[in-house]
Amino acid sequence: MYIVVLGAAAGGGFPQWNTNSANCQRSRAGDPAARPQTQSSIAVSADGARWCLFNASPDLRQQIAENRQLHPRTGKRHSPIAAVVLTNGDVDHVAGLLNLRESQPLALYASGRVLRTLADNSIFNVLNPDFVARREFALDRPFAVTTRDGADIGLSVEAFAVPGKVALYLEDPGAGENFGTRAGDTVGLRIAERNSDTCFYYIPGCAAMTPALADRLRGAALVLFDGTLWTDDEMVAGGVGVKTGQRMGHISMSGPDGTMAAFAGLDVARRMFIHINNTNPVIVDDSPERAEVAAAGWEVARDGMEIEL
Amino acid sequence: MYIVVLGAAAGGGFPQWNTNSANCQRSRAGDPAARPQTQSSIAVSADGARWCLFNASPDLRQQIAENRQLHPRTGKRHSPIAAVVLTNGDVDHVAGLLNLRESQPLALYASGRVLRTLADNSIFNVLNPDFVARREFALDRPFAVTTRDGADIGLSVEAFAVPGKVALYLEDPGAGENFGTRAGDTVGLRIAERNSDTCFYYIPGCAAMTPALADRLRGAALVLFDGTLWTDDEMVAGGVGVKTGQRMGHISMSGPDGTMAAFAGLDVARRMFIHINNTNPVIVDDSPERAEVAAAGWEVARDGMEIEL
Repeated sequence: MYIVVLGAAAGGGFPQWNTNSANCQRSRAGDPAARPQTQSSIAVSADGARWCLFNASPDLRQQIAENRQLHPRTGKRHSPIAAVVLTNGDVDHVAGLLNLRESQPLALYASGRVLRTLADNSIFNVLNPDFVARREFALDRPFAVTTRDGADIGLSVEAFAVPGKVALYLEDPGAGENFGTRAGDTVGLRIAERNSDTCFYYIPGCAAMTPALADRLRGAALVLFDGTLWTDDEMVAGGVGVKTGQRMGHISMSGPDGTMAAFAGLDVARRMFIHINNTNPVIVDDSPERAEVAAAGWEVARDGMEIEL
Repeated sequence: MYIVVLGAAAGGGFPQWNTNSANCQRSRAGDPAARPQTQSSIAVSADGARWCLFNASPDLRQQIAENRQLHPRTGKRHSPIAAVVLTNGDVDHVAGLLNLRESQPLALYASGRVLRTLADNSIFNVLNPDFVARREFALDRPFAVTTRDGADIGLSVEAFAVPGKVALYLEDPGAGENFGTRAGDTVGLRIAERNSDTCFYYIPGCAAMTPALADRLRGAALVLFDGTLWTDDEMVAGGVGVKTGQRMGHISMSGPDGTMAAFAGLDVARRMFIHINNTNPVIVDDSPERAEVAAAGWEVARDGMEIEL
């Protein structure tokens, strides 16, 4: 199974358009330790020919251009992208769908609630139903990823609810402290090669480690996990926001309730942070926090990184 | 007045994600005569400090990153982008708005019908109304562009209806051969320095030259005009589409009814094509069609091009 990190950064990317932090300045100045990162998405293939995108970031057009695996190969119109699976309705996970127009056959998988959001937003009608099949997945039920025309591409996906928050633009301020969030608004994914034991987990957004999630991940070969924040209050402390990580639906990397602590003892062979916010000091290669993450046995995803399982 | 071409290509950009044409292949291979071009948008400033975007393409995050004029300069959060003006509701002109989130003050100008489309699409709620003022413009009534807080940035804009077509995703198949298009669904813009005679026209989409439009443009210092297609049937003839230019709302460059013929005698000092489709042979520097355009006194916009008026 082949995995390509299309985008390693959280919403806004790195550098973020309106952020003037020291790290964003370093990135704009071309500092090799602060390389630009686009917004979070991965591509996965069982055969190296047909690919499934997991989330469609606003940077998708650039990501396709920069990754040769996703270039057209045959005929006049072609794309190796056969399918897209969405983990939630966040703008940084769905806006890229607007790039997948131009009458290209595609299968789009999401939860019923995310599909209804797409249906309610007429702009997504650029995905012509004659070419794009929208398919609802159920939680905790593995499904085979197939092309629009039903051909098996050799991948099996299982979606499961993780603690999170409904997409910002769908928040209901009158719905109390969870803003109308329902179970399944944010999912993690188990992505497997069909008829094989090869699998990994992709969880770009998660608000907390639960006992059920810990049980699920125990002993995994590879987990790509929410690396949005270093500490829960870093955006507030940095003077660039008013929301904590918990308010945004993201666990933090550090601290006794953080991700690194939560994974200790889970026996996950390869742990990789993805969906790194531009405020997280781990986004640059030479920070003490980056060294701390590495010392704890974690890798940090980077745009263009290729993984073979 | 300063103008920066953020994106010179039509919808899909160059190369287009799913197009395997000879020119797209050349572009992907790094051929310097087939340089990549992002989707159509320009930035304009009277003072070099505060900028107004004209259209917000899906490539806006990349365009901001690649043009230093649009980088933040002060404080922790900042953007030189003070306002956005939309010429229609096409996905390649509005999708980039989704990049302008993160609580940045902004003024957004569009026709009433385009603003209603944005309001009907909840995903645009990422533009928090506490920070982004949405303002309707009337046709044929010049307005001063001001910041969200009402500061004059030295630009005046007048929108006028041009022949065109309603956005693809809003087409009403039951509404006859114009798909429910109304006057003003596509506009041209006269962009002027306030209290000055310095002005130019930006018309990235236009289906035909009318006598009224010819009268308006006569004697202009600069016109940036719809350069989508070389011939009306090039997408059909090239086997990459079923629609003519007229079906898509675009006049062609060549031929007796084309743009170059229509501008002959209009005495426009500087004529520049923008919104070039990847099927248009003019997109590459070394085509005979490119030479023909140049011989007729036309320039072709390129990403990053800077113009001072």
